[in-house]
Amino acid sequence: MNPQLSISRRTRSTPFTSRVAAAGVKAYTVYNHMLLATMFESYEADYWHLCEHVQVWDVSCERQVAIEGPDAYRLVQLMTPRNLSKAKVGRCFYLPLCDVDGNMVNDPIAIKLSEEQWWLSIADSDVVLWAKGLATGMGLDVKVYEPDIWPLAVQGPKAEQLMSRVFGEQVKDIRFFQIQPLTYQTATGSVSMQVARSGWSKQGGFEIYVNDAQAGQQLWDELFSKGADLQVRAGCPNLIERLESGLLSLGNDMGYDTSPLEAGLEQYIDLDADIDSLSLPALRAQQPTKRLMGLVIDSQASISDNVLTIAGETVGEIRSLGYSPRYGVQLAFVLCYLAPLGNKLAVDVQTSDGTHQGKLCNLPFDFAALGLKAIK
Amino acid sequence: MNPQLSISRRTRSTPFTSRVAAAGVKAYTVYNHMLLATMFESYEADYWHLCEHVQVWDVSCERQVAIEGPDAYRLVQLMTPRNLSKAKVGRCFYLPLCDVDGNMVNDPIAIKLSEEQWWLSIADSDVVLWAKGLATGMGLDVKVYEPDIWPLAVQGPKAEQLMSRVFGEQVKDIRFFQIQPLTYQTATGSVSMQVARSGWSKQGGFEIYVNDAQAGQQLWDELFSKGADLQVRAGCPNLIERLESGLLSLGNDMGYDTSPLEAGLEQYIDLDADIDSLSLPALRAQQPTKRLMGLVIDSQASISDNVLTIAGETVGEIRSLGYSPRYGVQLAFVLCYLAPLGNKLAVDVQTSDGTHQGKLCNLPFDFAALGLKAIK
Repeated sequence: MNPQLSISRRTRSTPFTSRVAAAGVKAYTVYNHMLLATMFESYEADYWHLCEHVQVWDVSCERQVAIEGPDAYRLVQLMTPRNLSKAKVGRCFYLPLCDVDGNMVNDPIAIKLSEEQWWLSIADSDVVLWAKGLATGMGLDVKVYEPDIWPLAVQGPKAEQLMSRVFGEQVKDIRFFQIQPLTYQTATGSVSMQVARSGWSKQGGFEIYVNDAQAGQQLWDELFSKGADLQVRAGCPNLIERLESGLLSLGNDMGYDTSPLEAGLEQYIDLDADIDSLSLPALRAQQPTKRLMGLVIDSQASISDNVLTIAGETVGEIRSLGYSPRYGVQLAFVLCYLAPLGNKLAVDVQTSDGTHQGKLCNLPFDFAALGLKAIK
Repeated sequence: MNPQLSISRRTRSTPFTSRVAAAGVKAYTVYNHMLLATMFESYEADYWHLCEHVQVWDVSCERQVAIEGPDAYRLVQLMTPRNLSKAKVGRCFYLPLCDVDGNMVNDPIAIKLSEEQWWLSIADSDVVLWAKGLATGMGLDVKVYEPDIWPLAVQGPKAEQLMSRVFGEQVKDIRFFQIQPLTYQTATGSVSMQVARSGWSKQGGFEIYVNDAQAGQQLWDELFSKGADLQVRAGCPNLIERLESGLLSLGNDMGYDTSPLEAGLEQYIDLDADIDSLSLPALRAQQPTKRLMGLVIDSQASISDNVLTIAGETVGEIRSLGYSPRYGVQLAFVLCYLAPLGNKLAVDVQTSDGTHQGKLCNLPFDFAALGLKAIK
């Protein structure tokens, strides 16, 4: 059994924590100094439910770093090697944030709310300090702060149905990675909240940027009362689903030791763009020595060592690992060392009963190309 | 029962995690993205043992932010309102770190290792991003990074005795908040590690800045084998002890919403110093509206609300709370709102069976002045 988590004011609770507890949360992690549920029934039961029905996730830990003022675009662009010069208002952008050496600081969803107002919906590091440090050091005309916003995610194939019952048919017009303010009626008035079609799963759904704790609690309750026949449940980002879908986790799969090129995020980097980005010079010059890849390994292998080898030589390390009940195999994200690996795809993994062979591939997993069929 | 903690690569393990688990850790928190034990037997049993014997703590989560180069002093001084212009090599300094608005970013122990090399031994926020952001933005000639250092604390009244058995009599010459490199003999050679007389308790002891994982594991084992007759045990920062001793916790007692003046840290701020510090202008101009104080309340009160009131008006909030078995009362750190509180010291706290009265005081607690006697 895992040890308990000691909860204090420092491991911040959210407006939804009492509801998450009442829904039977079994385990938490701490993410951006805040509670994040990791399991309700079991990883596997939570997974199947997410893939078949609809879940409401308290992802308040996706803190918003607000960047506002005349230099807002300049600061956001400095932090990322992705070209945002043509970014439109009302759109979301997955952004690698990198330091001057080209290493990963965070990988938020950036939201452009107006020409002078951006939010960074962050992974687990204090981007507010990085952004404030840069703004202070460069004397930028910008305000950087963490507003009181607690996102709720509504995820799963029935998410659109549930959301339209609460917010009306207009949610159907929000396209993927678009965001717009919607009005939510409360007992005492109405609240305008930003709603995006997004979320940390590939099962479809929305994220609601709750900016009023009381209205948010009413919203949570309404999502459950109106979704009873849809089998709505409290949920959370799911290890199995994110591995199958190729969703990377900062701190697990990448971090200060990894460039976005090494993490396989080339499509979010504009090496040739004429933009003022801190990390572009380093990234343009970089010869990656590592690469994040997928690994498929037998479901029976009881893995005892995080290291991948070929003929006894270390060629990589396991960063995230889980069992896929859909395909009946274990899936992992592994950081491979390019020099010793070369173009070989068969690697050895030490297990409690000897050595098992695993198969490397590019991410995201292409299950058909791997010859894997759904067994459930 | 508290929920479980999901442990992943992101909630970093340490070189000592397997030993902490073998010692029977019951609960963890996550601190600087790393595991930190919070309880072994119980808060109370751990407390008495710490006050009477000696404990070894895995405080690897006290990450070091290394700041090296010609501009190292300049950057450290910019981050703090404490005057470091006369700081000597080989000394430790408790430092409030503040932003340009004078709010708390962190409260590390700063260590001056040489004229151009400082370490910040940090509380729970990503100071490495703050320092790198400032250095990048200002173009400072300095390297900022988080080295592979995992501090071990040896705490308790028998700490000096145990440390001298392992490192020799020379540890007795290290005075409070002094640090010096000591040689540790391993099976394969010797390792030089910085050792300070410091630690997050008032029971006396040392912190060893372990810079070699294997040597550290041998050191852990040696501390236990040589301390058996001293009843050495694995331990961790203890809630009861730190409340009694008045040790503040970032994220619990203070943070971005608090200035060091409001947290009662005046003695670490040099308002009149002629130094280049980002926060001094704001702090000089500040009229504090809040103040962190101590609260003593009946041991029977089952507190149901974090808010302090006087005649129904809110005058403060509880930030940390615990039962002191030594004095038979509950102790809390509370953030008081100066305008409604005035100079009143008796406040109401809502409890499950009505209202209990609590008594405010300055920190650290002066138990004799409060009329409290040890009952155990």
